[in-house]
Amino acid sequence: MNATLGFAVIGAGRIGALHARHLAGAVEGARLVRVVDPDRVAAERAAVAGAGFSDALDDALSDPAVDAVLIASPTKEHAWQLEAAAGAGKAIFCEKPVADDLAETVRAMEAVEGAGVPFQIGFNRRFDPAYAEVARAVRAGEIGKVELFRSQSSDPGPAPEAYIAASAGFFRDSVIHDIDAARFVAGEVERVTALGRVLVDPVYAKYGDVDTSVITLEFVSGALGVLMNSRRTVYGHDLRLEVHGEAGKLVAEDERATKVWRYGPGGPRGDYYHHFLDRFRDAYRLEVQAFVDAVHAGHAPEPGAVDAVESLRVADAAVRSLHEGRPVRVEEVTP
Amino acid sequence: MNATLGFAVIGAGRIGALHARHLAGAVEGARLVRVVDPDRVAAERAAVAGAGFSDALDDALSDPAVDAVLIASPTKEHAWQLEAAAGAGKAIFCEKPVADDLAETVRAMEAVEGAGVPFQIGFNRRFDPAYAEVARAVRAGEIGKVELFRSQSSDPGPAPEAYIAASAGFFRDSVIHDIDAARFVAGEVERVTALGRVLVDPVYAKYGDVDTSVITLEFVSGALGVLMNSRRTVYGHDLRLEVHGEAGKLVAEDERATKVWRYGPGGPRGDYYHHFLDRFRDAYRLEVQAFVDAVHAGHAPEPGAVDAVESLRVADAAVRSLHEGRPVRVEEVTP
Amino acid sequence: MNATLGFAVIGAGRIGALHARHLAGAVEGARLVRVVDPDRVAAERAAVAGAGFSDALDDALSDPAVDAVLIASPTKEHAWQLEAAAGAGKAIFCEKPVADDLAETVRAMEAVEGAGVPFQIGFNRRFDPAYAEVARAVRAGEIGKVELFRSQSSDPGPAPEAYIAASAGFFRDSVIHDIDAARFVAGEVERVTALGRVLVDPVYAKYGDVDTSVITLEFVSGALGVLMNSRRTVYGHDLRLEVHGEAGKLVAEDERATKVWRYGPGGPRGDYYHHFLDRFRDAYRLEVQAFVDAVHAGHAPEPGAVDAVESLRVADAAVRSLHEGRPVRVEEVTP
Amino acid sequence: MNATLGFAVIGAGRIGALHARHLAGAVEGARLVRVVDPDRVAAERAAVAGAGFSDALDDALSDPAVDAVLIASPTKEHAWQLEAAAGAGKAIFCEKPVADDLAETVRAMEAVEGAGVPFQIGFNRRFDPAYAEVARAVRAGEIGKVELFRSQSSDPGPAPEAYIAASAGFFRDSVIHDIDAARFVAGEVERVTALGRVLVDPVYAKYGDVDTSVITLEFVSGALGVLMNSRRTVYGHDLRLEVHGEAGKLVAEDERATKVWRYGPGGPRGDYYHHFLDRFRDAYRLEVQAFVDAVHAGHAPEPGAVDAVESLRVADAAVRSLHEGRPVRVEEVTP
Repeated sequence: MNATLGFAVIGAGRIGALHARHLAGAVEGARLVRVVDPDRVAAERAAVAGAGFSDALDDALSDPAVDAVLIASPTKEHAWQLEAAAGAGKAIFCEKPVADDLAETVRAMEAVEGAGVPFQIGFNRRFDPAYAEVARAVRAGEIGKVELFRSQSSDPGPAPEAYIAASAGFFRDSVIHDIDAARFVAGEVERVTALGRVLVDPVYAKYGDVDTSVITLEFVSGALGVLMNSRRTVYGHDLRLEVHGEAGKLVAEDERATKVWRYGPGGPRGDYYHHFLDRFRDAYRLEVQAFVDAVHAGHAPEPGAVDAVESLRVADAAVRSLHEGRPVRVEEVTP
Repeated sequence: MNATLGFAVIGAGRIGALHARHLAGAVEGARLVRVVDPDRVAAERAAVAGAGFSDALDDALSDPAVDAVLIASPTKEHAWQLEAAAGAGKAIFCEKPVADDLAETVRAMEAVEGAGVPFQIGFNRRFDPAYAEVARAVRAGEIGKVELFRSQSSDPGPAPEAYIAASAGFFRDSVIHDIDAARFVAGEVERVTALGRVLVDPVYAKYGDVDTSVITLEFVSGALGVLMNSRRTVYGHDLRLEVHGEAGKLVAEDERATKVWRYGPGGPRGDYYHHFLDRFRDAYRLEVQAFVDAVHAGHAPEPGAVDAVESLRVADAAVRSLHEGRPVRVEEVTP
Repeated sequence: MNATLGFAVIGAGRIGALHARHLAGAVEGARLVRVVDPDRVAAERAAVAGAGFSDALDDALSDPAVDAVLIASPTKEHAWQLEAAAGAGKAIFCEKPVADDLAETVRAMEAVEGAGVPFQIGFNRRFDPAYAEVARAVRAGEIGKVELFRSQSSDPGPAPEAYIAASAGFFRDSVIHDIDAARFVAGEVERVTALGRVLVDPVYAKYGDVDTSVITLEFVSGALGVLMNSRRTVYGHDLRLEVHGEAGKLVAEDERATKVWRYGPGGPRGDYYHHFLDRFRDAYRLEVQAFVDAVHAGHAPEPGAVDAVESLRVADAAVRSLHEGRPVRVEEVTP
Repeated sequence: MNATLGFAVIGAGRIGALHARHLAGAVEGARLVRVVDPDRVAAERAAVAGAGFSDALDDALSDPAVDAVLIASPTKEHAWQLEAAAGAGKAIFCEKPVADDLAETVRAMEAVEGAGVPFQIGFNRRFDPAYAEVARAVRAGEIGKVELFRSQSSDPGPAPEAYIAASAGFFRDSVIHDIDAARFVAGEVERVTALGRVLVDPVYAKYGDVDTSVITLEFVSGALGVLMNSRRTVYGHDLRLEVHGEAGKLVAEDERATKVWRYGPGGPRGDYYHHFLDRFRDAYRLEVQAFVDAVHAGHAPEPGAVDAVESLRVADAAVRSLHEGRPVRVEEVTP
């Protein structure tokens, strides 16, 4: 391993290009070595700060300057790229999800664990400064035993139909962030009950999906939780995290994009984020920084393989609960 | 009916005495005529501003200066007092609940409706200025169609065991306020799923009750809702109401007791209400004002008999869901 | 003195009528006996809850049921009414100001003090729950020694010309509330420097007045203060009180009329008070309650004669500073 | 000029090292070429991402890969370094202040303007996202004509004596940020009146300085302003910017370090920044980004030479006002 962790970014789309820029400068202890994308023009454009580029993953895996790969390709490519990178002994940061399917996810994670390479899954919300602080404070015992958990997320508007058609569905693609936050803060989930509706855009019904949901969680610890999700909040991204414990409550809220209040004829008014890349700008950088720090320190990065598998398992349980109209135990869901 | 509505307050406990003081001065168009309580000392103490007092309901019902009764006696007395007052043709404001049992509630409401007297049930949260404004704005169409509803309530600490032993249980006694708020804001409920735990005080288990719960609601309109309740928030009363609609969201929050922020070594800090009589001071007055205004105007007061019955029915459905571990349709619950 | 303090309200305008309603019911330990106004129709309308009314002050002063007078007549009537009421031995609550002129104020206060009757001046902002809590906390030593003070007040819009023509000017009529708040919280003022502008409505210039000002205060304690005032805040009443001390800061802010946040396309939005009677509803009641409590307890009510005189003296110093363009010591201002 | 702006950072102290890291990665269109510091060890440590380093400014000025210098050396070195860099035709970003003395500042700015090189002064608060948004909205006319301006800044605690001894004083060193913000948002200042006290640490008196101040500003536009400053706020950095205009108000406030609220026995509590490098992390990066963007676009960077001179002139006027106890016109202050 090089003193400064050399990265190949795999996939030069919007998220890959963002990671490449961060690695070129904003992440300490790392540098951008290469960008790989079948679209060489995109790869070149993302290869900032003098990094190389190519259209072949092998070029990156055989480059001794590459210590780590950051996989930001389309989901269906993740599994084989993970296995190849693991085989080449590279440290791996992979955008979520590993795969849309639990069995494929488990297989890929087994390959990674078999190779013994460091692995981190891109549940970036764990690195949002507010979410991270809530989790830290809960673990530090600031509110005692957790009793009630709530996570809420809404996007400004529904996705385009092409995205919906290709996605693994609202629960596995979007609500999984709230599920992972729940596991992060309150521990493993025992049972799930899901309610879902198509209230925002009828196109979701066409794909057997929902756009509005309420999911209750029963944690192994005995705590109760609620996830509330929608595909439409006209005022911008609306994310809240609440943890109620025996000795107090922690809330990550106040999603205003700036610290400015505007006082006009209608009263004081704040402004929200309208694009998730703005909302999660810090989180996208900090998650990679944490990965780099863990690799340098020789610790297992987190969230890791178990989180990739278990958060998807809870999402699968929610899908089953929605379809069958009953509470579903997470252990019922097997690969 | 007298030009100024003459009231007899039945029951001179803490709430009855508060209502008596309000009627003596703070409610326009009304005056306090009498206080009735089997404990004559208590009745006398509550009979402020020169009002009469006695230990017999009949004294009040036969007094032509009494146009209306405000029933604030123990719950088990409500039903017969309601029937007697209805028989005497008095307008009736009754503290919640009418009765702990749905069948008895329905019978009392039938007596009231048979007599054709004005009737209001004391779901005071509808008159909290913030809750009332949210409901008003929803009805005015400010956020379009309602999609998600959430109500949260927590008390600073658990009730004394004597209270728990006598109460109709967490859902029928306490969560019913959130249920009524849900019906008030988002309409009738079709199906209920309840999760409950004893996390705060083991004494709740002794009485087959819970102290922490998450209840999901499926509204007739297609909207989804969540009620989150606890018997312990160390920082004071914690009540929040959120309504998410197609065109925006309304939130009643910020329960601080004063508008003061204190900036000390630990950062800025606000202060919450620790007693429900402080938190709901305005609501207790405004609900009676609304009753008086409705009687003067010849309108049916709200919340009325249907609310007394239907909110209890939803609470009963939640109890059944908790016991049977399954979603329960409200229509399954019959008197 | 009667067991329940009997009040005559002198002046049946908007404020007098409000006080009359409060005395009839909302103030404990008091009752409304009479309303006096040269306009008998107005007096009768304000005489709620069976109170008497007349057009002559003497009727009230000679009534043994009247223990106290609440003077809410036009300012120019205050002085002789104060002297008459003091002569009759009545406890006196007088709306601010005692008089527009310092010499007349001092004379009236000497008459009151000579008679030895309880006296309170209606600086109601001291009884706003948030302002009162800030003052209480400062006195309790919560922030140590006061170093910086700030009070800000703005009205939604300028007053009608008739009001401006009759008023004693922006500083003596309006900013005096902030001056009294400063003295209440941070002690006596030594020196004043005033800047003023006509930015809102040219009519103020016609009367030699200003509508926008910044006044700095040097307190006897060594602390510094700022008063910022305007006649126009389009979003409603904007009042803030900030006290910065060696050990922290106290802020009374967040003037929203309800605890509701509205989330629409422009982001979250709150709503402010647009009428001072709404903004100070509690303060108008609580100041009279405090007066009644002090009289019953045999304590001197506060704010009293010294506050009536000294707050006006600071306002006069500010007027002089504005006209002469220099810092003015308060002791330079003599009756 | 190179396609990517090559930078030499002059001065490898805390701020210089921060700028060097930003230039190495976080600033688009720029790269770090060299770090210069008489302490070669410090220079080497700050020369991240493969940048060169040396102890001689000439090495940087003669390097054709260096298009721009970022001067972060001790203030007393600024003037000759500015003149040397201007003579070498380099674009210049200089930390504030150019010099502690107005005459020296004017001379250095004349040298820069004579050379015609791009110049920016490091008033970083203009690039704080909230301050920048307030200024943008004011310029866009969102609140109409500005009537009242307020800026407040407090540090968690006083500086060490060595810093105080070497500094140009509270107004020229610290309050100058608020002065520049005032000029940025509300335009040029005509007259200044300053009040100052030593309330925090007697050491300020030893150096003829103050630690607590209130300064009023009269803007050329007719608006009024207030600057409130202290060297002690125990809860962290406390910065607020308020602009009151004819059509509304803009406020940059809510300095919490995270979006987390902690609800404990004392009520909800937020947390503030305790180090200015945390509070202004974004601003330090964004000001350099703006400089790079302006140079690439061929625009004059802002804030520029006029701001370096005029903000210091207002600070000098405040010092004179403090000493002479009278309002001072800014035009009285000449180099």
